[in-house]
Amino acid sequence: MKIRGSTNITWHRPLVTQADRDRRNGYKGVVLWFTGLPSSGKSTLAHQTERSLFDRGCNAYVLDGDNIRHRLNKDLSFSPEDRKENIRRIGEVANLLADAGIIVIAAFISPYRADRAQARALNDPGRFFEVYCKCSLETCEERDPKGLYRKARTGEVKEFTGISAPYEEPEDAEIVVETDRQGLEECVSEILSHLEERGVLTASAEGRGLPRKSSKGQGG
Amino acid sequence: MKIRGSTNITWHRPLVTQADRDRRNGYKGVVLWFTGLPSSGKSTLAHQTERSLFDRGCNAYVLDGDNIRHRLNKDLSFSPEDRKENIRRIGEVANLLADAGIIVIAAFISPYRADRAQARALNDPGRFFEVYCKCSLETCEERDPKGLYRKARTGEVKEFTGISAPYEEPEDAEIVVETDRQGLEECVSEILSHLEERGVLTASAEGRGLPRKSSKGQGG
Repeated sequence: MKIRGSTNITWHRPLVTQADRDRRNGYKGVVLWFTGLPSSGKSTLAHQTERSLFDRGCNAYVLDGDNIRHRLNKDLSFSPEDRKENIRRIGEVANLLADAGIIVIAAFISPYRADRAQARALNDPGRFFEVYCKCSLETCEERDPKGLYRKARTGEVKEFTGISAPYEEPEDAEIVVETDRQGLEECVSEILSHLEERGVLTASAEGRGLPRKSSKGQGG
Repeated sequence: MKIRGSTNITWHRPLVTQADRDRRNGYKGVVLWFTGLPSSGKSTLAHQTERSLFDRGCNAYVLDGDNIRHRLNKDLSFSPEDRKENIRRIGEVANLLADAGIIVIAAFISPYRADRAQARALNDPGRFFEVYCKCSLETCEERDPKGLYRKARTGEVKEFTGISAPYEEPEDAEIVVETDRQGLEECVSEILSHLEERGVLTASAEGRGLPRKSSKGQGG
């Protein structure tokens, strides 16, 4: 038991570690961080990926506007600083869920590289996968299921990512899916293949023999 | 797909539900909310309960000062409004984890009934268990591993729960353990027995045949 930071808070050594969970589950708790323009298909792809992972026996869980913006982050506005705080909290929650052994699928526009880098930095190497849902602005704008691009063009909606606010494309995403060229199943399959190759879905072999902490140095 | 609240946020029907997770796991995702005076043994008991549940094949996960105050809630002070916001966010995160199929063990002083009631209200009936870690003030003050009671008595630490700030005892806790009379193993055993009786650890039988949503009306 050691005390750090505020003297009101005590640090307890956990009796169950992330590596313990990985070994028993047979897969690793990781964060899949989906990023992309509005209407690029992040949430649809996130839910389909969750289902496919569940069908393979993994516990996957989607974080998106539905369970975050109306709940944990309902106190936040869409101001620049609150958008940043929104992504900061999501990064922390994703890290907690992965620590609990879950394959977390966070699906948010998250337009800024710095914010995504901050979310990544919370996780051990090999525990965070940036998934760029790449889609041309033209296609996103054609889809526009909520009419938001149209409102952004007329100025009715301000600071809309891709139109009147920047989207910083990932430069080093682990996975890139092209949602305007590939079908949904193909995108899911590509994500799952990558996770297989990186040993995420076969943690029992990798974690074997490690007493307390997960294996390091898997890149990321 | 329906839109609610802000028009920027779309609601997606999940393809994997809490009931799906419960059925496969064989236990229910629930929140165990530990409350009690400082030094009443909440965190020690929380970690031991997590370990015992893990050893029974359940995925349990502790939320406490260690992984919350230094991380998600590091922007919060110990002012009254920030303490309230601290508990609000913990309630939301606990609910998310339970939705993901985990037996969440939240261990915080959480001195106010209203704050605990708010955390409870986020969960379906039968998904939230208040666990009162009952311990006389005298015993807590004798233990005082961090010397905080002493500092509270001299006034060096202000607004200290039990001394210079109120602790509102639970009136309707599902589980009461007396950490000044019962041993650690006895307390854990009592908690697990209660979860068994309430069907938390045998969700496969209870959830059977329910297509989308968990069973209701279990009290709580």
